[in-house]
Amino acid sequence: MGGDHGPAVTLPACRQFLDSHPDAQLLLVGRAEALQGFDHPRARVVPATEVVGMDDSVEVALRKKRDSSTRVAIQQVKEGAAQAAVSAGNTGALMAIARYLLKTLERIERPAIATQIPNARGGATTVLDLGANVDCTAEHLLQFAVMGSALVSVLNNDDRPTVGLLNIGEEAIKGGDEIKRAGELLRAAAAAGDLNFVGNVEGNDIFKGTADIVVCDGFVGNVALKTTEGLATMIMQFLREEFTRNPLTRLAAALSYPVLKALKKRLDHRRYNGAALLGLRGLVFKSHGSADALAFEQALCRAYDAASNQLLDRVRARIAHAAPLLAQPAPAPAQPAA
Amino acid sequence: MGGDHGPAVTLPACRQFLDSHPDAQLLLVGRAEALQGFDHPRARVVPATEVVGMDDSVEVALRKKRDSSTRVAIQQVKEGAAQAAVSAGNTGALMAIARYLLKTLERIERPAIATQIPNARGGATTVLDLGANVDCTAEHLLQFAVMGSALVSVLNNDDRPTVGLLNIGEEAIKGGDEIKRAGELLRAAAAAGDLNFVGNVEGNDIFKGTADIVVCDGFVGNVALKTTEGLATMIMQFLREEFTRNPLTRLAAALSYPVLKALKKRLDHRRYNGAALLGLRGLVFKSHGSADALAFEQALCRAYDAASNQLLDRVRARIAHAAPLLAQPAPAPAQPAA
Repeated sequence: MGGDHGPAVTLPACRQFLDSHPDAQLLLVGRAEALQGFDHPRARVVPATEVVGMDDSVEVALRKKRDSSTRVAIQQVKEGAAQAAVSAGNTGALMAIARYLLKTLERIERPAIATQIPNARGGATTVLDLGANVDCTAEHLLQFAVMGSALVSVLNNDDRPTVGLLNIGEEAIKGGDEIKRAGELLRAAAAAGDLNFVGNVEGNDIFKGTADIVVCDGFVGNVALKTTEGLATMIMQFLREEFTRNPLTRLAAALSYPVLKALKKRLDHRRYNGAALLGLRGLVFKSHGSADALAFEQALCRAYDAASNQLLDRVRARIAHAAPLLAQPAPAPAQPAA
Repeated sequence: MGGDHGPAVTLPACRQFLDSHPDAQLLLVGRAEALQGFDHPRARVVPATEVVGMDDSVEVALRKKRDSSTRVAIQQVKEGAAQAAVSAGNTGALMAIARYLLKTLERIERPAIATQIPNARGGATTVLDLGANVDCTAEHLLQFAVMGSALVSVLNNDDRPTVGLLNIGEEAIKGGDEIKRAGELLRAAAAAGDLNFVGNVEGNDIFKGTADIVVCDGFVGNVALKTTEGLATMIMQFLREEFTRNPLTRLAAALSYPVLKALKKRLDHRRYNGAALLGLRGLVFKSHGSADALAFEQALCRAYDAASNQLLDRVRARIAHAAPLLAQPAPAPAQPAA
């Protein structure tokens, strides 16, 4: 029901997904009248009478709208009726409801949102956290690194993905105490064979592809992601304006079409749509709210791949392996007082 | 002496700057043998026997290299022999030496680094802090807003530049306690006529040009800046590869030359080279270490403009006006223990 377009986008995406995944089944959760037109032997409507609005607070979503499509969908995962939930709706509400219903995994204090950003190597860098936690202790960052490694081992079929810790330049004053302590924990985890830690990375390394996984707190990750979206939008808009300026530039644009199309594809977030909510006792994926059918289908594929490849078991196994380090109590958690 | 290229870049930039500014005078601070070839009636060499390396720690720069070009240059400002200092060297050392010798302005606890980022409106957004302070209280962010407003009023000749507070999306869990408190302080400052505060902005607003000034802590600012540099580099590299792929794409590139040149110019950080170190009792500007002569000349022009337009007096006046708010004691400063 969620996202900027609702069923007008999600239903066509569901049909494409079912066509390309002959063993998949879908539960369509939402208002019956909005979904009942969808007829497919491997899809079934699970009715929910309410919808969490994009502007609804977490409190409203959790306490007032007890029959929301978000909540009913997560409930399907909790009950084992679904192997994963996918939503294009309100991110804060999705995370809060998922955390409330599913609970976090043992030794994970905070779930994280992990997304993929296309990089210069033609692949993608997985960055987490992207907004679930506005400030994090060193222990949280270690947990993110462990969970991110499990996710990327599934996505890239690589059992030793590299992890970098997002920090500021060497020539400037280096990160604060929590970041330094996170570096120590990550080095210890690498020494114990839990992680393939490559050290500090900087903002530009996300695009260089220096590490498969980049860990940071949710505030920093969110700002970095939105800043790059802003730059990409500015560049595409600029090219559009300049290439339509006069007949000569229009001719140049026509000749440049394959290049511009390739650039657009390279920058296309849709290919990587479907952020993972990691650290929960169930699989939940978040599609961008503005996703079109192609992008929403990607999020469905991502959830399908995660379920097929036992992502949850892999996360659990990695956490168990890293348990001695994860269990360390935080000496001085830098959490807000509230 | 500093930067990736040293006098090979800075001296040609100095000559161009002197040619275009007939009333300007330059003190060239550094090793005499490296600078003595520069002969100009309005330039004079001030010898310094040591150079702070790009990898030198702040401690080494401050305590061991007491006759460094950085230190001697700042000393010229302190003694009134120069109206501003410009360096392409080690940022951390420059900030530490400037702070040690010049001291911070009254009611300013921490200096900040302010830089300009080209935006979609064809102008530039001034962002601070860019790396001097890895975590900031609400009071620091207010101080940055006041100092940034003074800087932009000089750069843009606009007495009421708009200020935005960098935060994460509305749909995600909003920023931590310090950010919320900073929003309250900024609103109070706007009500008192000290600032033209437009509210929270997100990462993409830096490129949209939603506010003239965006304030954030130095860790977030540094990551955002380097992340966008990474994306811009990736895009330019991608276009270079794609446009040289075959004869047809080479023809397209030739026809697209004006567009690609305009894009390169739009993304060219050199046009905005010269970050201001704000909050000190003297004017100090930092050039990017990789600056070429054109870029370093920009940094010199920026310092010249700031001195000509009494930036320091304007910062002082704004601080005095906002004094009742700035003087508020921090209830619970979120500074690192160390």
